[in-house]
Amino acid sequence: MLKGNCVIAQSGGPTAVINNSLAGAIEAAYRGEAIGEIYGARNGIMGILAENFIDLRRQDAATIQGLRFTPGAALGSCRYQLKKKEDYDKLLAVFRKFDIRYFFYIGGNDSMDTAHKVNQLAQEEGYELRVIGIPKTVDNDLPLTDHCPGYGSAAKYLAAIVLEMGMDIKSIVTSTKVAIVEAMGRNTGWLAAATALARRAPGEAPHLIYLPEVAFDLQAFLTDVEKAYHQYGTVLVVVSEGLVDKNGNYIFNDAATVDVFGHQRLGGLGQFLLNKIEAELKIKGRFILPATSQRSAMHLASRTDAEEAYNVGRVAVEEALRGASGHMVAIKRLEGEEYRCTYELVELDKVANQEKKVPRAWINAAGNDVTTDFINYARPLIQGEVNVPYHNGLPAYVNLAQ
Amino acid sequence: MLKGNCVIAQSGGPTAVINNSLAGAIEAAYRGEAIGEIYGARNGIMGILAENFIDLRRQDAATIQGLRFTPGAALGSCRYQLKKKEDYDKLLAVFRKFDIRYFFYIGGNDSMDTAHKVNQLAQEEGYELRVIGIPKTVDNDLPLTDHCPGYGSAAKYLAAIVLEMGMDIKSIVTSTKVAIVEAMGRNTGWLAAATALARRAPGEAPHLIYLPEVAFDLQAFLTDVEKAYHQYGTVLVVVSEGLVDKNGNYIFNDAATVDVFGHQRLGGLGQFLLNKIEAELKIKGRFILPATSQRSAMHLASRTDAEEAYNVGRVAVEEALRGASGHMVAIKRLEGEEYRCTYELVELDKVANQEKKVPRAWINAAGNDVTTDFINYARPLIQGEVNVPYHNGLPAYVNLAQ
Repeated sequence: MLKGNCVIAQSGGPTAVINNSLAGAIEAAYRGEAIGEIYGARNGIMGILAENFIDLRRQDAATIQGLRFTPGAALGSCRYQLKKKEDYDKLLAVFRKFDIRYFFYIGGNDSMDTAHKVNQLAQEEGYELRVIGIPKTVDNDLPLTDHCPGYGSAAKYLAAIVLEMGMDIKSIVTSTKVAIVEAMGRNTGWLAAATALARRAPGEAPHLIYLPEVAFDLQAFLTDVEKAYHQYGTVLVVVSEGLVDKNGNYIFNDAATVDVFGHQRLGGLGQFLLNKIEAELKIKGRFILPATSQRSAMHLASRTDAEEAYNVGRVAVEEALRGASGHMVAIKRLEGEEYRCTYELVELDKVANQEKKVPRAWINAAGNDVTTDFINYARPLIQGEVNVPYHNGLPAYVNLAQ
Repeated sequence: MLKGNCVIAQSGGPTAVINNSLAGAIEAAYRGEAIGEIYGARNGIMGILAENFIDLRRQDAATIQGLRFTPGAALGSCRYQLKKKEDYDKLLAVFRKFDIRYFFYIGGNDSMDTAHKVNQLAQEEGYELRVIGIPKTVDNDLPLTDHCPGYGSAAKYLAAIVLEMGMDIKSIVTSTKVAIVEAMGRNTGWLAAATALARRAPGEAPHLIYLPEVAFDLQAFLTDVEKAYHQYGTVLVVVSEGLVDKNGNYIFNDAATVDVFGHQRLGGLGQFLLNKIEAELKIKGRFILPATSQRSAMHLASRTDAEEAYNVGRVAVEEALRGASGHMVAIKRLEGEEYRCTYELVELDKVANQEKKVPRAWINAAGNDVTTDFINYARPLIQGEVNVPYHNGLPAYVNLAQ
């Protein structure tokens, strides 16, 4: 039994259920006899470097329970990629100083890369450390896991508002005939694809869905929109923010701005495409940009997703206590009619910096919709509602004690 | 007792609870012995002109109940202003042909004007007709009513996602420091103002709120944002889509496009202001445009609002059966600590084409926030949740039988 303290950190863009993973990890750590102090690092890896910790043992039970209903990263998060040797050395020095023997990192692709490197370094330096990655991303783009905690809730919310906005636009005879909804998803179309779940019958919204997995052709797009307009009268189009042309270049590219990882910042694609529709087809439309509401809408989270997010946090700690290190907790879907899943460990270096795209076979030939296989994959992930407590008309969310 | 048939129509932009008003009117009409056929006009007044009716007596009880949980205008709606004498004459001819003696029009300012004119014409022509307007608008801008059905639900949803997005942006240390949320509201700031309900403690989002009731000054805005950025680290700003400068000109004006009433189509203001912030202050931000999700988010409707929407529909029919005509049903807030309201009739011609703005006294001196008086006004309107039924992970919405 490796005795020592533990640190938990959250990284990257939050999800509605990222704090479920935190709650699962904390409650499993409470039960772990080998674990002394339970530190929460403020703002991801930056909090470890700065020795900026929250004492997770002194949170009351109501707050830990409240995490299961609270969006945003309760510990604080960051987008900070360890690059310099000094950063890694500092990290290990902090682990030694605080006798940290367990490190749990809740994050996406970049964070799994960080966790992998920390694990490697500790081995090289002969410092006994258990490192487990806890997956989270609304983008659903981590490999080796059936899906990612956070995706189901974002998918459920986005599909629900597309259903509602589809009923709205269909119901009013007005000059607005086209609505373009821009979904999150830098390089993968999982979220845009999920809006197909809103379609209860043929001809209902969304009428067209475009993913970055298929090269986008502006002329084909305009032809699709015009055809759908003549067929249905009103058209609701969903586009993934990261659509690219056949050469892999972004269709709309605010090239001046890149984030700290060098990823291009997107947004505005939907308005760009709407302008094209209005100019070329003379059909008036409306642009909808749900943006970060997609990753923070705990009020319409998927119960399935919330429970799985809790479980990947719990399993991470349980497996570390059993001796695992250098792994990420993955979700494995079991065979059978009814949706069931289990949890398994996959190696961090096989996850790090990899991206899982929507399979081409799950997108129709025209590249403007998804197939039944995608629907069958995604439908179970949005099942069930979370009974968020309300206070004074709004969700009652919690903050951790500092 | 005036015996005859009745017609109900919906007009203008839908709200989450517009079908509650329809359900209230239908169920009251079922109880009205004087009422024969109950017609639903397809797409507002256009459906009457085209004699395009749905038989509301042959809807099953489950469908009528389902209307109470269904967004979008179930009858279909329109933005069509009767202007020509022929339109009015045709309308009256249809009423005569179908022996329609009761006309209920669910709508906003423009629709109350139409209802008023129809009532006048019938009187002039000696055709006995009872006309009652049923208010609905997320804009909350109808006069002579404490508030408008539809507003409370839009306010609740918008405040909830601002709360959630505020927790999201606050929790991640990243390059994105400013979020601009553009709220609906062409000439009034009621919806933008409602996001203040999300602020549970000083310093929480939204940090700045701008309404069209106060002349917008770009330099003062940039100063406000910079100050809030230094004070809070991240800033969530809410702007009403229809902000105007001291001369009454729109700050951002897509002048090429006007709707059928000659109203300028807005949208894009938030992106325009974000570009200014990035260029002038060198602070990076993100734009959020919830657009029509604000008026269709039945999944997070206010129970108070849904019940009031039902009641204005019910009262309209009951009052018409008692002999009223030429009126709109208004909501009157009763004195006292606890929120209670009653319903009363106000004259259509006093409502038609009038706009109620947020009182200047409910906006702070700097013009970038609301006061406690506004909070006390708006808070009761978002109370209570609606238990929307779910099917397969998404809200189970209904359609009327054609």
